[in-house]
Amino acid sequence: MAAIALKGTIVSAPVLGQLEVLEDGYLVTEDGVVAGTFPVLPERYAGIPVEDWSGRLILQSFADLHLHAPQYSMLGMGMDLPLLDWLDTYAFPTEARFADTDYARAVYRQLARELVENGTTRVCMFSSLHTDATLILMDELERAGVTGYVGKVNMDRNGAPGLQEDTEGSMRETLRWLDACQDFPHIRPILTPRFTPSCTDALMAFLGRLAAERDLPIQSHLSENQAEVDWVRQLHPDCSQYWETYAKFGLWGRRTVMAHCVWSDARERQAMAEAGVTAVHCADSNQNLCSGVAPVRALLQEGVRVALGSDIAGGDHLHMFDVVAASIRASKARRILDGWTPAFLTVAEAWYLGTSAGAAFFGAAPGFAPGSRLHALVLDDRTLPCPHPLTARERLERAIYRRQPGAIRAVWSDGRNVYRAG
Amino acid sequence: MAAIALKGTIVSAPVLGQLEVLEDGYLVTEDGVVAGTFPVLPERYAGIPVEDWSGRLILQSFADLHLHAPQYSMLGMGMDLPLLDWLDTYAFPTEARFADTDYARAVYRQLARELVENGTTRVCMFSSLHTDATLILMDELERAGVTGYVGKVNMDRNGAPGLQEDTEGSMRETLRWLDACQDFPHIRPILTPRFTPSCTDALMAFLGRLAAERDLPIQSHLSENQAEVDWVRQLHPDCSQYWETYAKFGLWGRRTVMAHCVWSDARERQAMAEAGVTAVHCADSNQNLCSGVAPVRALLQEGVRVALGSDIAGGDHLHMFDVVAASIRASKARRILDGWTPAFLTVAEAWYLGTSAGAAFFGAAPGFAPGSRLHALVLDDRTLPCPHPLTARERLERAIYRRQPGAIRAVWSDGRNVYRAG
Repeated sequence: MAAIALKGTIVSAPVLGQLEVLEDGYLVTEDGVVAGTFPVLPERYAGIPVEDWSGRLILQSFADLHLHAPQYSMLGMGMDLPLLDWLDTYAFPTEARFADTDYARAVYRQLARELVENGTTRVCMFSSLHTDATLILMDELERAGVTGYVGKVNMDRNGAPGLQEDTEGSMRETLRWLDACQDFPHIRPILTPRFTPSCTDALMAFLGRLAAERDLPIQSHLSENQAEVDWVRQLHPDCSQYWETYAKFGLWGRRTVMAHCVWSDARERQAMAEAGVTAVHCADSNQNLCSGVAPVRALLQEGVRVALGSDIAGGDHLHMFDVVAASIRASKARRILDGWTPAFLTVAEAWYLGTSAGAAFFGAAPGFAPGSRLHALVLDDRTLPCPHPLTARERLERAIYRRQPGAIRAVWSDGRNVYRAG
Repeated sequence: MAAIALKGTIVSAPVLGQLEVLEDGYLVTEDGVVAGTFPVLPERYAGIPVEDWSGRLILQSFADLHLHAPQYSMLGMGMDLPLLDWLDTYAFPTEARFADTDYARAVYRQLARELVENGTTRVCMFSSLHTDATLILMDELERAGVTGYVGKVNMDRNGAPGLQEDTEGSMRETLRWLDACQDFPHIRPILTPRFTPSCTDALMAFLGRLAAERDLPIQSHLSENQAEVDWVRQLHPDCSQYWETYAKFGLWGRRTVMAHCVWSDARERQAMAEAGVTAVHCADSNQNLCSGVAPVRALLQEGVRVALGSDIAGGDHLHMFDVVAASIRASKARRILDGWTPAFLTVAEAWYLGTSAGAAFFGAAPGFAPGSRLHALVLDDRTLPCPHPLTARERLERAIYRRQPGAIRAVWSDGRNVYRAG
């Protein structure tokens, strides 16, 4: 049994709204599995290697539950357009380039490296509709040490020149992709109908059957933008709400993640809570594309599972420290918007959403729970000036707001050390 | 006459909402003064040194019209508190530390360096109420190559333990400070009543007389937060609006900058337009402290001068690329808030506000106008992936949204090269 200890100031989020802090403590792992956190190294671990990160923060690493890998190359562009125009003008032409596997390899290698170096070790990610590029993406994430789910996009209507499948082809390629991606130990497939307007009923029904037969998770978009919601209503006059267009095909349940949920009303939120669907809040994306501000407080109060997503490239921040800060800021906008009623997200709540809540979709217990495989990062904030001796909570808040290039010194993913700053 | 040329893709903002782009052009300066931008180097400049930044962007550097230097050391902390509580719990105790000149020297040196390295070459800045620390701040900015205005804060009521002056002392120290700061060539004094609740009528009247006698500019805060606006109304029952509490003491005119203006209604905005007061929009600060979202579109349409401020540490971003992005994002929140009516800030508009509009307060012409002293930066974005060959406008947008550590390669301030990446 290979045990090691990380020594430093350990901060974790075991419960929504609560931080667990251990100053100058020891985080012990055995073969990559958390054995526990201890104020003093227990006798039974005497003599194990200790990595001394004294004075630095040892934090959970991040889970990014919604992002579009091919859009990485257009990060920060086209933000003056509303969602549906932005898709046509930027997102679709960019994704079409991933028919080129060399291009895909170069972009995805850079993306995977940037994720790991910035402490994102779990993802739930859209690829494009290209099977080969999707396999390259999975390969690059696997090599870099990222874990989680990647989905080949399905899209057999309302696409763009060079970016649409026919129904048969989409089914066939989905099966080819599923067969080909069985050997990645840390990156697993997730079914990915882009969103209701992109998929015919036949394709949706096929994906629903596949999810059931092979016990596969599902990701898609829900109620992001008012024009989109109206469009879905026209496409599915039999469904009174957007979520029903997924539910009727068996794409709605505990293994489903739905990005955005900006316009999800009380009934749609109830449907999420009852089914155990995870809502992914993508704060900056929703504001950039003028979609709105998601009712995160209502979702949480009504028992919906909520996690965070960078949603690049509708979102402009890949780094989850920024995404956590954006979710706090958006919750304050929501407060201003809703007559100063809903409480905004506290630092502890937003931190939980960006770490433990996302990890839960992969079956992980919150915080640094004993028995979990280690997902962690070390952050060195010692070069920043201080107005007074800081508490660990203050240092965490500062880390969230104040991105510090190079401050992440080491990252562990699924028990493996996957990054060390040079 | 020492002429040099910078070669690269030159982007500037000569007019609100318009970008001027010159691909692979030459920006020529003579003794630090812009001579012009040229697609081909004119014959009369044959043989002058050419700095070849081909493939990189040559941009105007930034003007940050509102920030609190002593709060640099608490950047990113205490954001869960509303304005008045945040002042008592974080801002005031932090500022009180600047009685210690050694502490001030260390913090201000780091701040000045971070400003220059991130392309902020003009500032309109609050110090604390400490005369000596204020002189140290001016010295450090001067050494680093920052230009602009710095104000010793006046505050003779409603302060905090260790952070309040008596009226006589405030007047006396203001005069001592003004005498002592005459020798900084690029950093000039600005009178700085903290905000109306912080200053007695006697002190305000003194500052108004001083502004007139010595032709000094003035900075303060206006209508940031509803509780603050109510408080000012109680303190000055003779004034029907907040702005009148400045105007009645002669602190309201063309050389006045007022931060925030979140709750400025049509009448207050009209008073700003008529007097030529500059409103400083501090988007993230206003959202972080739950103050609201300033009506920037209305301010612009009604002819108010508007510039941007980082407002550290209510704002959590010192870097003006972030501040420009935040102003766009806030304008979209405002659009969502106001029944989808006001148009959001475009990239070109926000860029103008962060550069040319701020420079105007210092008397500079917009863009790279011939005759202006050079304030510029070079940004290298060549390591980022591209979905297609990008226009200069797309590259500028990406630069705004996507902070790139180390991407700023060189900075000029008042005609001097003040930074080169190592």
